[in-house]
Amino acid sequence: MGTSSKIGDQADLAAFNKLRMLPPEEVRASIRREDYYGQTAGLGPGHLQGNIAIVPSACALDFFRFCQRNPKPCPLVGVTDARSPYLPELGGDIDIRTDVPAYNIYRNGELVEQRPNLNDLWSDDLVVFVLGCSFSFEDALINEGIPLRHINECKTVPMYRTSIETTSAGAFSGPLVVSMRPIAQNNIIRAVTITERFPQAHGTPIHIGDPANIGITDIMKPDWGDATEIKSGEIPVFWACGVTPQAAIQAAKLPLFISHAPGHMLITDVKSWDTTSLKT
Amino acid sequence: MGTSSKIGDQADLAAFNKLRMLPPEEVRASIRREDYYGQTAGLGPGHLQGNIAIVPSACALDFFRFCQRNPKPCPLVGVTDARSPYLPELGGDIDIRTDVPAYNIYRNGELVEQRPNLNDLWSDDLVVFVLGCSFSFEDALINEGIPLRHINECKTVPMYRTSIETTSAGAFSGPLVVSMRPIAQNNIIRAVTITERFPQAHGTPIHIGDPANIGITDIMKPDWGDATEIKSGEIPVFWACGVTPQAAIQAAKLPLFISHAPGHMLITDVKSWDTTSLKT
Repeated sequence: MGTSSKIGDQADLAAFNKLRMLPPEEVRASIRREDYYGQTAGLGPGHLQGNIAIVPSACALDFFRFCQRNPKPCPLVGVTDARSPYLPELGGDIDIRTDVPAYNIYRNGELVEQRPNLNDLWSDDLVVFVLGCSFSFEDALINEGIPLRHINECKTVPMYRTSIETTSAGAFSGPLVVSMRPIAQNNIIRAVTITERFPQAHGTPIHIGDPANIGITDIMKPDWGDATEIKSGEIPVFWACGVTPQAAIQAAKLPLFISHAPGHMLITDVKSWDTTSLKT
Repeated sequence: MGTSSKIGDQADLAAFNKLRMLPPEEVRASIRREDYYGQTAGLGPGHLQGNIAIVPSACALDFFRFCQRNPKPCPLVGVTDARSPYLPELGGDIDIRTDVPAYNIYRNGELVEQRPNLNDLWSDDLVVFVLGCSFSFEDALINEGIPLRHINECKTVPMYRTSIETTSAGAFSGPLVVSMRPIAQNNIIRAVTITERFPQAHGTPIHIGDPANIGITDIMKPDWGDATEIKSGEIPVFWACGVTPQAAIQAAKLPLFISHAPGHMLITDVKSWDTTSLKT
């Protein structure tokens, strides 16, 4: 796998802190200039961040169907027009070719390359889908006093394939992937009602309690991310995860599929708390 | 305009009453046999009914975009697979060619014909979109003690073009169309919270109060439906309306566009109250 020397998981902390309090368009401008190419968690505070999935137009209608049929793992917040790299609904200046800090390039389902921009790869045949991610509801949980261990321990949230099948569409199918957060028993009800307010960020949990009920055999062996301890008095809570559509697209072995690199999201101008009333 | 002799606004009341308490699949079976071809309001109680929009595949992706960008007038609840007339997500036996009581056929934006089925018109090139309609939230309002005058007076809800533009996609654009229901001042807040529970049936109102604020100059002259009196102590409440996508599609002058005849909806197996948690 070729990796641009500019891209790394460890972006300069000073660069990150300089961007921290800036509005989304200034963060995007910095990313567009390739001054910043790190993770986006914590940037553009209060604004919706998006996973991106870029597919050839021949399968765009089927991927649209897949999102419509599986809204909890695939909360669609924006789609480009034919032959357009812009997303005016999500931010007046957004150009998807340059405004994501790092892109993963897949060919026939295999990750072949990581790039800092899509300038040489973009074509009018591509359609861009932007899906809400869990950052919005995680911020809300923390702000309302529900701590999240994977964040406190600077880990990646643990993710698991489940025995729940997505509803297929064309070439796209596969298991529902979930993320798990241990929540103290006395916070469970609020964790449900708080995340219900963010349908465009996966919404309410899929499952609360015994991992075996959804086909997870060993909670300490996630399929993606880092194992996270569940302490006494805590219950594992499972939310639909944006890895679901990524895995479905990879399994479809499209000639070309482009996504954000994990953690390197598109920062939009849409307010996180505004997701239910996003549009008329 | 040619009209099948079997189709009329005044279906046999005895036939209607025979169907009234039957489950959705039995009502659909009667419609499929063309024993019943009347309006569907009040049938399949407790189940989501859908407006239908059938378009050639060449513009399906743009119509999908239009729905995604305008979810309040276009709450998408189902889409057929390529080359399929079935909608398994909405009902195991649904065949869109036969399960709607009456179809309007438009060519180049003009209504040219009404048909009781699509057997001779169906082709693998067509894509079917099902959009939630206001029946679900109207039932909920009535059940929670908020009377609706147009229903009590057996009229069609008044509908208006507004000065609010939809977000366009490809050939699809045009004004947001709203329906109006006069609500007693002391019921306004509950009317908002009740309809919020039905995002797949247009959700919360678009506007409450002065019609001029959304470009309606004479509330007693609706663009569609019947004028409805607003009594002292009542406030006009406006919801996004399913005529919005219909008008947008007509304006696009597609070579072929098929919809349900007004009031003659698709009755689904989806529970009305289940719309927020319709899918994982």
